[in-house]
Amino acid sequence: MIDFRALADKYDTPLYVYDFNHITEQYQKLKKAFSGRKSLISYAVKANSNLSVVSHLAGLGSGADCVSIGEVKRALMAGIPKYQIIFSGVGKGDDEIEEALEDDILLLNLESEAEMERVEAIAAKLGKEARISIRVNPNIDPKTHPYISTGLHENKFGVDLETAKRMYIYANNSKHLDPVGIHFHIGSQLTELEPIREASAIVADLVRSLKAIKIEIKFFDVGGGLGIVYDNETTIEPYEYAQAIFSTLYGLDVTIICEPGRFMVGNCGYFLTRVLYEKVNEGKRFVIVDGAMNDLLRPSLYNAYHKVEVVGKAGDESEADIVGPVCESGDFFAKNRLLPPTEHNDLVVVYSAGAYGFVMASNYNTRPRPAEVAIVDGKDRCIRQRETFEDLIKLETMCL
Amino acid sequence: MIDFRALADKYDTPLYVYDFNHITEQYQKLKKAFSGRKSLISYAVKANSNLSVVSHLAGLGSGADCVSIGEVKRALMAGIPKYQIIFSGVGKGDDEIEEALEDDILLLNLESEAEMERVEAIAAKLGKEARISIRVNPNIDPKTHPYISTGLHENKFGVDLETAKRMYIYANNSKHLDPVGIHFHIGSQLTELEPIREASAIVADLVRSLKAIKIEIKFFDVGGGLGIVYDNETTIEPYEYAQAIFSTLYGLDVTIICEPGRFMVGNCGYFLTRVLYEKVNEGKRFVIVDGAMNDLLRPSLYNAYHKVEVVGKAGDESEADIVGPVCESGDFFAKNRLLPPTEHNDLVVVYSAGAYGFVMASNYNTRPRPAEVAIVDGKDRCIRQRETFEDLIKLETMCL
Ligand SMILES: Cc1ncc(COP(=O)(O)O)c(C=O)c1O
Ligand SMILES: Cc1ncc(COP(=O)(O)O)c(C=O)c1O
Repeated sequence: MIDFRALADKYDTPLYVYDFNHITEQYQKLKKAFSGRKSLISYAVKANSNLSVVSHLAGLGSGADCVSIGEVKRALMAGIPKYQIIFSGVGKGDDEIEEALEDDILLLNLESEAEMERVEAIAAKLGKEARISIRVNPNIDPKTHPYISTGLHENKFGVDLETAKRMYIYANNSKHLDPVGIHFHIGSQLTELEPIREASAIVADLVRSLKAIKIEIKFFDVGGGLGIVYDNETTIEPYEYAQAIFSTLYGLDVTIICEPGRFMVGNCGYFLTRVLYEKVNEGKRFVIVDGAMNDLLRPSLYNAYHKVEVVGKAGDESEADIVGPVCESGDFFAKNRLLPPTEHNDLVVVYSAGAYGFVMASNYNTRPRPAEVAIVDGKDRCIRQRETFEDLIKLETMCL
Repeated sequence: MIDFRALADKYDTPLYVYDFNHITEQYQKLKKAFSGRKSLISYAVKANSNLSVVSHLAGLGSGADCVSIGEVKRALMAGIPKYQIIFSGVGKGDDEIEEALEDDILLLNLESEAEMERVEAIAAKLGKEARISIRVNPNIDPKTHPYISTGLHENKFGVDLETAKRMYIYANNSKHLDPVGIHFHIGSQLTELEPIREASAIVADLVRSLKAIKIEIKFFDVGGGLGIVYDNETTIEPYEYAQAIFSTLYGLDVTIICEPGRFMVGNCGYFLTRVLYEKVNEGKRFVIVDGAMNDLLRPSLYNAYHKVEVVGKAGDESEADIVGPVCESGDFFAKNRLLPPTEHNDLVVVYSAGAYGFVMASNYNTRPRPAEVAIVDGKDRCIRQRETFEDLIKLETMCL
């Protein structure tokens, strides 16, 4: 049990707290599930890019899935070996491509023919051969929120099967491209296995047809997306997940890459915030807290559900919204929840805040971003200091 | 005409550009509209809190509407006199209240009885009398986006008329509270005058009934919310706006406070981003640019419309989405727009990006935030430096 009250007293609120032992468990569970084959778990850094989080995962043997050169730098700084780092994303800048090639990471994952041309040109300029994979869009409905659904054709991600094949043939003939991997990712917060199995089967078929024309794919990247329990979802068991993928890979000797973000850190994180006031407007009850949408955007952006709890309080529960101080109706953490009466300074815990929490924080309303704390073997350690007002204005005062 | 290409070359992309002369025009237009009465334009700092922007407005005589102590500090640093600074917002922390009282700003705008008790207690502790106003919720439908609609009862803002009256009587009897103002704000991006007139009439009636019991309100704060043209909206003329408010104030000698954010800066700002690639997925065309939802969140968060233009390009237009490199389907700037063919490095201008643009930016995907540039009398000046990777990790490396 984490002593949230002690942490709030020590570090103040709003605050992010991560249970590193829980991250270890998640990593081990997934790694074990894939143990029947060669596999690399490449943590999706975007979910929580704190250097200490990434470094903890590096210590467990994790690789990194990065979507910007900044994330690649974080991964390297955190001690992830370069041959376990992937650079994905639909829009890589020339300077990012160049730096990634010079860093000699495992591979660049390509999402369009135009991008392939840029990578080839830059690799040629550097006199290098770029290891690449290609993101294939298997056109499978992942059954998740439209904003995080990425497997259907009417979105920007990946290329269709024919284009992919054409690209592999091109890359295979290029002196500056080495097509070593294939990739798909159909969405985030997936809770159904069947779409994953279908997507994997489609992509495995493509790998076999490439093999038939002597293009040998070494890395079979199944993306991330494993869902977690926010409320009472039924989620996918890692073992079932791995088996479903294995079942599509007959005849292939590939290393499976898996890029989980949310699964690895989502339920290991807690957002702590204190009650400022309660108020009732025409019968509607509001608990106003010191955290806001700038600190944790998921409820506003995705209408996401997070479990909440008022620490150590019981009593006559009634429905309330938990809202922040930002001047927007969209600034809320929870709506219509049964909550006990609260008082000034009571502590509220927002659960499942480890993924897509701090990384999406902003300084909206000139609010400094929260500190982040790790719990390792029962001991707490600050892993990112709370921002100060001075941090916020530094790049502006330099211009005055 | 702003030379966007020269600015992109000089400062790189993504980039925010603000036309300060246009800000001046907006300020003058509104100030003039209110010239028939005593008035104070209190710029809503949350819309664009860059110190140089606020300082420019300070130079014009503007006050500041702030929603955090950080915004109060920005206003003071930017040279806004303390007697023109208001501190609003539903959730003020004790330390914020204390600091605002010590700064001796014009007034604190209160949004609940619980908050009034805190302010009274803190003022008592400091041996001060806190000048306050109370935000009244007139329960008027502003006819705008639900996230930015704030005038209806089922939201967290303000108090109903009876509660307000009770609070005024209480404050008037308190040694540590001085009720000098009244406030309402029914929503943002308002394009219809009638809801504003109705709200103003309701609040003015309350002021008259307070006057009848010898509580003299000096400041009549009509909030912000004046809409601007993003697409082809019909907006409210400042003159009509002022007249509508004046028409409700018979028998009252009050100073009108107006807190525009978007109106003052929205259409004075431009977001510049360069094309990385084009791609077509199953007949759907995507223009991928180097800016993303982390830089400008409005399209993702509010599904907001922004005019876009590919600089200096013409030719066979076809429908396309303009999207960023972030790995979410919600990462877009424009959908289904007719656009000419684009090439690598073409420049795209996103219009109306001056309000709720940079202030909502985050470092999602480890993307450094853009630089901000001001254009004053045809000359450009950097007003916020581009973030570097080192800026992003500084508060984390301190903990390693
Ligand atoms: C390509 C790719 N891989 C991995 C992830 C991580 O997803 P999750 O956190 O759902 O596992 C994402 C999420 O957007 C992604 O786009
Ligand atoms: C109380 C208050 N005043 C002023 C504003 C500024 O609104 P706008 O930018 O629409 O003028 C807001 C916006 O949220 C607000 O909540």
